[in-house]
Amino acid sequence: MTARVTTGTPPEAAATAPEGGATGKDAILLAARRAFTQRPYAEVTIRGIAADAGVSASLVVKHFGRKEQLFNTVADFGPAAEELFDAPLGGLGRHMVLTLVRRRREQKGDPFLRVVFSLGNQDERSLLRTRFHEQVTARLTARLPGRERALRAELIAGHLIGLGATLSLHREGAGSHATPEHLADLYAPAIQRLVAG
Amino acid sequence: MTARVTTGTPPEAAATAPEGGATGKDAILLAARRAFTQRPYAEVTIRGIAADAGVSASLVVKHFGRKEQLFNTVADFGPAAEELFDAPLGGLGRHMVLTLVRRRREQKGDPFLRVVFSLGNQDERSLLRTRFHEQVTARLTARLPGRERALRAELIAGHLIGLGATLSLHREGAGSHATPEHLADLYAPAIQRLVAG
Repeated sequence: MTARVTTGTPPEAAATAPEGGATGKDAILLAARRAFTQRPYAEVTIRGIAADAGVSASLVVKHFGRKEQLFNTVADFGPAAEELFDAPLGGLGRHMVLTLVRRRREQKGDPFLRVVFSLGNQDERSLLRTRFHEQVTARLTARLPGRERALRAELIAGHLIGLGATLSLHREGAGSHATPEHLADLYAPAIQRLVAG
Repeated sequence: MTARVTTGTPPEAAATAPEGGATGKDAILLAARRAFTQRPYAEVTIRGIAADAGVSASLVVKHFGRKEQLFNTVADFGPAAEELFDAPLGGLGRHMVLTLVRRRREQKGDPFLRVVFSLGNQDERSLLRTRFHEQVTARLTARLPGRERALRAELIAGHLIGLGATLSLHREGAGSHATPEHLADLYAPAIQRLVAG
């Protein structure tokens, strides 16, 4: 699929995305995540997402289809979970923290944080929670050894969501100046302890 | 202040709140937290909060004043931080987890979780973030011994926000069946390690 990025993407950004359109698509995904996590489903429009991403509405539809399809794409925690869980158990805690921090710094967005915006809502965003249970918690539970695997998976998810939350919350804080490795030194042992059981 | 709870509070609930009105006030606070964290400030109304709490709008105003004052009350993390941080450093991690879980189970709400709803928003809710920095992160930083206190305080805040998030996210999950003590056994060592530095 070749992207025709109409606005909002400077030529040098396009040049660093030789496969074509990755930058425009990323901008649309970021805008869609923002929209679907911050507003009730019924209030979200393709036009609004396009404006936020700096592209045309027709480009959004071309890449992701209509609103329902775009929502399904945004509510998919699978690829992020695959990336975060892709390490041997002995180093999984550290891998998770490094991956989460690096993804954020590379502007790929936080892997799991958007699920918290669905808390306390009765609208369609609760689909986010169901997806999270299936794609993150259940999958992690299946990978863990030992006892109380579901409980440990829930708590590991909590540590990961909390890391993303506090980095967003203290955007100019001490965490923003720390290297991913240093953050892993401080934060990953807790997760590794729950991984090992 | 004696509350005249007009609706929504069964007599037996009132009977368990001998100081008068705690139950009605708690219901209003819960409804106000929900409203201010889920909607832009401009869209929140006293009438809507009252309806959600099952009380009259005049009762809301009687207890908490008009919208601005109610917002200031809801955006106050001070009392919760005081409760969570009220332990010697050697047992602070465990105290924090026990207090957070017990507060939630006693329907007093999560102490910090609502701050995440302010993330990514440019509206008045960002006041929530500023309050959090002052009342939670800075205060915790001041209590910690050793080096990198601000960074450790941010990460401790992350652990606590994450615990509330995952308990809300897995409302019927394994965490909901675990005792506060057991959750502390699994989750508090991470926090204590950052407290000790």
